[in-house]
Amino acid sequence: MAGNTFGTFFKLTTFGESHGTAIGGVIEGCPPGLAISIEAIQRELDRRRPGQSAIVTQRKEPDQVQFLSGIFEGKATGTPIGFTIANQDQHSADYSHIKDVYRPGHADYVYEQKYGLRDYRGGGRSSARETACRVVAGALAKQILPEVKINAFVSSVGDIFIDKPYQALDFSQTDSNPVRCPDSATAARMMQLIAEVKAQGDTVGGTVTCVLQNVPVGLGEPVFDKLHAELGKAMLSINAVKGFEYGSGFCGARMKGSEHNDAYNPDGTTKTNLSGGIQGGISNGMDIYFRVAFKPVSTIMQPQQTIDASGNTISMEGKGRHDPCVVPRAVPIVEAMAAIVLADFYLINKIYR
Amino acid sequence: MAGNTFGTFFKLTTFGESHGTAIGGVIEGCPPGLAISIEAIQRELDRRRPGQSAIVTQRKEPDQVQFLSGIFEGKATGTPIGFTIANQDQHSADYSHIKDVYRPGHADYVYEQKYGLRDYRGGGRSSARETACRVVAGALAKQILPEVKINAFVSSVGDIFIDKPYQALDFSQTDSNPVRCPDSATAARMMQLIAEVKAQGDTVGGTVTCVLQNVPVGLGEPVFDKLHAELGKAMLSINAVKGFEYGSGFCGARMKGSEHNDAYNPDGTTKTNLSGGIQGGISNGMDIYFRVAFKPVSTIMQPQQTIDASGNTISMEGKGRHDPCVVPRAVPIVEAMAAIVLADFYLINKIYR
Amino acid sequence: MAGNTFGTFFKLTTFGESHGTAIGGVIEGCPPGLAISIEAIQRELDRRRPGQSAIVTQRKEPDQVQFLSGIFEGKATGTPIGFTIANQDQHSADYSHIKDVYRPGHADYVYEQKYGLRDYRGGGRSSARETACRVVAGALAKQILPEVKINAFVSSVGDIFIDKPYQALDFSQTDSNPVRCPDSATAARMMQLIAEVKAQGDTVGGTVTCVLQNVPVGLGEPVFDKLHAELGKAMLSINAVKGFEYGSGFCGARMKGSEHNDAYNPDGTTKTNLSGGIQGGISNGMDIYFRVAFKPVSTIMQPQQTIDASGNTISMEGKGRHDPCVVPRAVPIVEAMAAIVLADFYLINKIYR
Amino acid sequence: MAGNTFGTFFKLTTFGESHGTAIGGVIEGCPPGLAISIEAIQRELDRRRPGQSAIVTQRKEPDQVQFLSGIFEGKATGTPIGFTIANQDQHSADYSHIKDVYRPGHADYVYEQKYGLRDYRGGGRSSARETACRVVAGALAKQILPEVKINAFVSSVGDIFIDKPYQALDFSQTDSNPVRCPDSATAARMMQLIAEVKAQGDTVGGTVTCVLQNVPVGLGEPVFDKLHAELGKAMLSINAVKGFEYGSGFCGARMKGSEHNDAYNPDGTTKTNLSGGIQGGISNGMDIYFRVAFKPVSTIMQPQQTIDASGNTISMEGKGRHDPCVVPRAVPIVEAMAAIVLADFYLINKIYR
Repeated sequence: MAGNTFGTFFKLTTFGESHGTAIGGVIEGCPPGLAISIEAIQRELDRRRPGQSAIVTQRKEPDQVQFLSGIFEGKATGTPIGFTIANQDQHSADYSHIKDVYRPGHADYVYEQKYGLRDYRGGGRSSARETACRVVAGALAKQILPEVKINAFVSSVGDIFIDKPYQALDFSQTDSNPVRCPDSATAARMMQLIAEVKAQGDTVGGTVTCVLQNVPVGLGEPVFDKLHAELGKAMLSINAVKGFEYGSGFCGARMKGSEHNDAYNPDGTTKTNLSGGIQGGISNGMDIYFRVAFKPVSTIMQPQQTIDASGNTISMEGKGRHDPCVVPRAVPIVEAMAAIVLADFYLINKIYR
Repeated sequence: MAGNTFGTFFKLTTFGESHGTAIGGVIEGCPPGLAISIEAIQRELDRRRPGQSAIVTQRKEPDQVQFLSGIFEGKATGTPIGFTIANQDQHSADYSHIKDVYRPGHADYVYEQKYGLRDYRGGGRSSARETACRVVAGALAKQILPEVKINAFVSSVGDIFIDKPYQALDFSQTDSNPVRCPDSATAARMMQLIAEVKAQGDTVGGTVTCVLQNVPVGLGEPVFDKLHAELGKAMLSINAVKGFEYGSGFCGARMKGSEHNDAYNPDGTTKTNLSGGIQGGISNGMDIYFRVAFKPVSTIMQPQQTIDASGNTISMEGKGRHDPCVVPRAVPIVEAMAAIVLADFYLINKIYR
Repeated sequence: MAGNTFGTFFKLTTFGESHGTAIGGVIEGCPPGLAISIEAIQRELDRRRPGQSAIVTQRKEPDQVQFLSGIFEGKATGTPIGFTIANQDQHSADYSHIKDVYRPGHADYVYEQKYGLRDYRGGGRSSARETACRVVAGALAKQILPEVKINAFVSSVGDIFIDKPYQALDFSQTDSNPVRCPDSATAARMMQLIAEVKAQGDTVGGTVTCVLQNVPVGLGEPVFDKLHAELGKAMLSINAVKGFEYGSGFCGARMKGSEHNDAYNPDGTTKTNLSGGIQGGISNGMDIYFRVAFKPVSTIMQPQQTIDASGNTISMEGKGRHDPCVVPRAVPIVEAMAAIVLADFYLINKIYR
Repeated sequence: MAGNTFGTFFKLTTFGESHGTAIGGVIEGCPPGLAISIEAIQRELDRRRPGQSAIVTQRKEPDQVQFLSGIFEGKATGTPIGFTIANQDQHSADYSHIKDVYRPGHADYVYEQKYGLRDYRGGGRSSARETACRVVAGALAKQILPEVKINAFVSSVGDIFIDKPYQALDFSQTDSNPVRCPDSATAARMMQLIAEVKAQGDTVGGTVTCVLQNVPVGLGEPVFDKLHAELGKAMLSINAVKGFEYGSGFCGARMKGSEHNDAYNPDGTTKTNLSGGIQGGISNGMDIYFRVAFKPVSTIMQPQQTIDASGNTISMEGKGRHDPCVVPRAVPIVEAMAAIVLADFYLINKIYR
């Protein structure tokens, strides 16, 4: 109920603040006997890690995951997998100036209102550093479903959008540039925009699109736990997300039924896929695709007016090392959360068989 | 895990198929001693009921809720509130033609793939009739939070949008027209579009916007159960929904941080509200507003090609009585789900005090 | 969290008070395609029903279950099974004398302290009438596990105990006498004791023993949700239960390890079974057996001193129709809860395969 | 669902095997602002630690808890409290002889049957070492309820029982002897018995009684989550437990209603307390007391016949360092689980106020 757990059978519980001793988590429900590649997990963590390129934060955290339990002789034992990621490059002094200040766009004010106190260092629990734990669990979830292809990529930064359907993209190119846009021409324009914005001490928002292919038919539960409802919750729970749409999405709301209905082929596949691979909350075997909107990072390197805990108006300016645009680092997080949702529904579905 | 429950402390579990004996549910967590207005609950049900106007389905279901437990001498006792809504106008014969057919855009195929069988009458469990149970629980949730104002309205039908900010609208006018758009000029255009579409045997999508005002500060749990993540899941769990955005939403993804950050006033309110009343997943006391995209209704009165259970291609045409546009009837459902989310977080929050 | 649900995947949620309109529940997780015998369910309900013999309460409630959803053409569809049991023989006037009185041994006082009000008619939610809903779900659970033999029986009433091991009993004789003791000589003595106690306007406690045979190996989760921990919780949640032991139980606490350890046969069975069929919280395929202690019924037909809501001392005497000894009617309830626990773990276990 | 979590709002999730890198857990729901004494937590851990006296195992594990999150400047922040306890004195070589052997009375066989593999070192996840994590959470729970007195003690070892009611005992003497029996004469006899049993390479069972005083009225949820049902599950989830009874317990099943009913005093207290402080599953403010049966430790230093994974009969003899009697070290575990149950219900109850 305290909101630190995601999933029902394949389940991740996370703990940890940005500047505490460590962050970490507990993964439950990993099928016993599964051979686990810790290298593959670390590789996903490295994709999320700060300091990878000029367009992301320059913090240098190795983000090395340490597994404490649940894996024996390279295989999952069926018992909970505990893990930690040490917080090393803490620079807590960078944050003493915000101890009594509520940063605009951040959670400082609401945490203090809700709990009566807060760990102000680096945003504490509200920091996106927590998402590293999700990447660990997501990378494990991917190993449960090796046949499913999960590909997220940056589909827009500010007003620069990829103008092609996802089918025309080569996902193997996503990580070939720092912005994680598989279309190289668009990527170049996005990187230029980010560089400009950074030079102004400003930040910019963007969207991530994610495509799930080869998903088994039948995943998702009807009514409240529809597959797209869980995917939506998963994405909306990522820091800075403001919107989620799947299949035809908001465009679908402008269409007519005669345009929108996907006609069936004799084998149960559909000729079009405006449904986005999900009908009635259950996967139908077609590609699942969705789009996630991220607001611009709140910490900017420009002076802003705000208030302190006593209600005094003060001027503040961002310090520390922050991302000018969060979407490139969000790509592995979106994939991780999608993988967790799929693995959970996949395992639950075994009960019906 | 089977997906029939929403909420953690204030909790709704629903059951029932479109053409079974009855639908119903169990509401848990209603504060003991609360005086319950059953009239107010029935009033909300009547808003969702089919047959209210020419632009919605002509099915005539009285949708009378019967409470079986948990209320004694007009007050909640703290024990679970069981209720049923009888299915009366069943016309099951209308559905015999779809027994072995998978209707395009519907859940027929995936239910059969997932469960191996299905109650084909009127969509069975996948029918939006289930949402009547949500309206019951939502109308009760509103009574737990009488000071909170929950106003949903139709903000677009097809390409016809309200072109005003919600602050310029008079919510008392929402129910003054059948389309439930509080702007009368826009409402007239929407109704004309729906009439045209209906005459063609077609359907059209739309969006519902919802505004939550006077919400206490501090609702929502950090990390996975953020207030907007739960609102998003709640909305995405409603039949036909394809997208959810709150605050700046998808537009926010195109903005810069210097534009997007909401500056604080000395009292903790903010000068702008692009955050949409939620920061870090927790309500900050400002208006919460979000938008929900609904696809066009899948059942159309035009011939469509589809397949039967043996994979034969056949032509079918919608029968029965269906909505040409679902958004007017979705308004009370959106409000209900929002009320359930708020009541749940409100009650949980008492633990922290 | 409100305590009205039992189980995780195969899950029962109940509602209803003794003298409301109806009691009922929602059963989730029933495997789709399962052919359901409603007759078998009603038969179990009839075993629990009051008015069966001279030694149980003379209330005449038909306790007819009505299924509202989740069953189509005789089979479970995988969707929730809603059901109600009408309250017919309500005699609410019998209870007006306890409106402001706290009956000794009953939950009147604590409900009022916890909730600030209570439905005083017949104990409201605290009435054992709620267990009828458990019998419905348990009878369904038995159909999920047809190969498992679940046999409960009365093993003691007051100081009269069966003095044979369960292996020497013929379970087919359990229902051959009203006290539900499969040993006819002991049953006769028990019935005589109950008759004497009833003649004195008094009541008497007893124990129920339950034997689960042919249980698959591997049911139960380690650590907190051990099979015997869930069985224990299930039994302790039945009205009037004061204790639970399984396998060697309290006697085991007096033994030495060299006496207690069950030696293995080459096929994984054990030569003795002091473990009670469960090791480390997981079934090992041997018989599971446990014993449940029930206190004497609190409502006696003798004058007792108690207090009213104002703290005045008053004298009261039981009215209405009550059981002089609850264990005969508890037998189907114990079996039902055991069946629910087994079915739940059985279904969950499919995930590991 | 995987059974690694206990509690609903105040919630403990544990991970870790006996001989992995570390055991640990996540505690959620600790009230924000609570000043936490880490010393008091370590003190409870030290009570459970092996190697304290001649009558317990001689393993030397410092069992030092390290907190990783959720505590800032000495206070709980409301975010999850992650912690680890390193496994230091691992002696894994002691266990190579059981790699392919199923020890009688242990969970080796069932783990392998359930999961298809097992971490055989020291029992892996089935080891009682996991209970150290429960002691951490329980010691924290005690700090949430400082006014409640929680006192467990050894009430029997083998056939040696304390022959006094708990009211005649001085709980401050419980820790004055290694067996943790507050009656010094009985303690001496218990210690002698344990010494004799140990000399024979054997082990012996016992019981722990626990008394909860000054518990607020109203804790516990009706129906399935009754206070005593949760206490029972909590106790039955502790390794080696075979039975649980509260209040009159199994003796109550031999009594008459006229003897058993607790008459009220005008202030709502009762003249007797056979109820054990709980009515209808809800605390009534009187002392809560219960008794827990522990079987003898399965690992004995005598040759036993058993089987290996291939079904061959072999002879084995316990190695390593094991407890001849587990109840002295179980005392802090019983207290910890009781504290967790009470804290959870206490916090949930705030919602009703």
